Amino acid sequence: MNIYDLIIIGSGPAGLAAAIYAQRAKLNTLVIEKAMVSGGQVLNTYEVDNYPGLPGIGGYDLGMKFREHADKLGAVFAEDEVVRIEDEGEGSAKRVIGQDKTYEARALILATGAHHRLLGVPGEQELSGAGVSYCATCDGAFFRNKVTAVVGGGDVAVEDAIFLARMCSKVYVIHRRDQLRAARSLQEKLFSLDNVEMIWDSVAEEICGEEQVNGLKIANVKTGEKKTLSLQGVFIAVGITPESQAFEGLVDMEQGYIKAGEDCATSVPGIFAAGDVRKKNLRQIITAAADGANAVTSVEHYLMKH
Amino acid sequence: MNIYDLIIIGSGPAGLAAAIYAQRAKLNTLVIEKAMVSGGQVLNTYEVDNYPGLPGIGGYDLGMKFREHADKLGAVFAEDEVVRIEDEGEGSAKRVIGQDKTYEARALILATGAHHRLLGVPGEQELSGAGVSYCATCDGAFFRNKVTAVVGGGDVAVEDAIFLARMCSKVYVIHRRDQLRAARSLQEKLFSLDNVEMIWDSVAEEICGEEQVNGLKIANVKTGEKKTLSLQGVFIAVGITPESQAFEGLVDMEQGYIKAGEDCATSVPGIFAAGDVRKKNLRQIITAAADGANAVTSVEHYLMKH
Repeated sequence: MNIYDLIIIGSGPAGLAAAIYAQRAKLNTLVIEKAMVSGGQVLNTYEVDNYPGLPGIGGYDLGMKFREHADKLGAVFAEDEVVRIEDEGEGSAKRVIGQDKTYEARALILATGAHHRLLGVPGEQELSGAGVSYCATCDGAFFRNKVTAVVGGGDVAVEDAIFLARMCSKVYVIHRRDQLRAARSLQEKLFSLDNVEMIWDSVAEEICGEEQVNGLKIANVKTGEKKTLSLQGVFIAVGITPESQAFEGLVDMEQGYIKAGEDCATSVPGIFAAGDVRKKNLRQIITAAADGANAVTSVEHYLMKH
Repeated sequence: MNIYDLIIIGSGPAGLAAAIYAQRAKLNTLVIEKAMVSGGQVLNTYEVDNYPGLPGIGGYDLGMKFREHADKLGAVFAEDEVVRIEDEGEGSAKRVIGQDKTYEARALILATGAHHRLLGVPGEQELSGAGVSYCATCDGAFFRNKVTAVVGGGDVAVEDAIFLARMCSKVYVIHRRDQLRAARSLQEKLFSLDNVEMIWDSVAEEICGEEQVNGLKIANVKTGEKKTLSLQGVFIAVGITPESQAFEGLVDMEQGYIKAGEDCATSVPGIFAAGDVRKKNLRQIITAAADGANAVTSVEHYLMKH
């Protein structure tokens, strides 16, 4: 079996930045991505305005630019979903068991990112794709001149609401607290929109409808008051969960995030974690990409010793 | 006096990324830059091929893209050189004493970067600008069809040599060791060039010439053999020194680098360090930019508490 110097699992900004650095370091590298396209969560972002040097770029375009950069340097990709990792200790090859094949490498970078968190209310799964969405950028256009709600209060929720307000006749923002967590500049933009209505101190209790969403039951957490909003779409933006299930028992974690410092070294020698799956303060495209660079540098140091 | 929320000192990739994040966070921010243009060391880099999303971009162009991004978001700049900082403890405004003016802010990000290290041999200072250069990108064009030498063995030295080989009749690379530290991909490119000659195990002892460079005395550190190369230009690429003199005694340092972790927090509350001036493993554009984002996030947390 071909033993790679490095296998990178995941091809969002962290994995692709790692691929770019690995190609420049002439490491024999394979990138394994479970999706048909690279880019990760970035692909579902309408506009990215904080990746320095590319103001106001579309998320999909930015994902493609990262992938094209890696392609240009000759990065090799495999489409497969990693099930688990077998490691026999420092210096030995690590075995990556995918659904299709098994791969081996002297070092690994885990860059699997994170995914959207579920709301966990009745109707959510039943009506997913029939009015329930986790991606305003992908699905917003289906709700032209319709009424929608965004559930959440962070940056993504507010960005989604601002985006939807451009095409929907009305957008409710349902948030469990009495203030948003989102960046102030985003909040100001949101509050300036005529067709956005904030519903504070409230949680979603049920998404209603038979074949299509036609309502959202909400409850005020302070007064206990309940009501049903009449609408056609519910966009859920209540945070993310790290994609680390395949690595449970392999590396030390905290709340599902892989424990690793700025050098991306996990508790297992030769295995590194980069991007949103790593326990860190700030999950941004720019910090994910920096992780990719740091992880490859750590891989180079590790490989020199083994 | 106007008290800013945040003053960012320096406007290389770290300072400009911080400015971008600070503008999006709606912090009342001033960026102080001592040079007439932003970008820092990037400006002197011929080609940058490892900033994800912008393959093969010119260093000057990348610096301008960062600056334009910050400008687009409304960042405010002052041209001044910071002499020292006065700090009266946590929660108090920090006073920034420049050569022209004094400024005050509730928090600071030190992003002053680093500068080229001197070789320290006779003739270096006397012939600086008369054949001695620290920037192949800036000065290479003056040496068309002439013979030059690059002193150093890291990425920048090799990049400089590759760049100079396009215009010079011959390029020597003088390196004190028997192998280069530069990335393997760069080495391969260098070794493929007909008009580049490697001179291993050797150090520069003197740069010769009256009004213009006409030779370089070198010594082999293994054999002791000395000789003088006949040439017209010497490019010095022997590393960098952090630009931290103005902060001595203010924050904890190690070998001139400001001690701060991934969150960029220095030993002084409210003062953060980002980019090449910070003690860190990997000094790259992408990691400097990530520092800018992390530092602003830390500033936001600090300001919420004070």
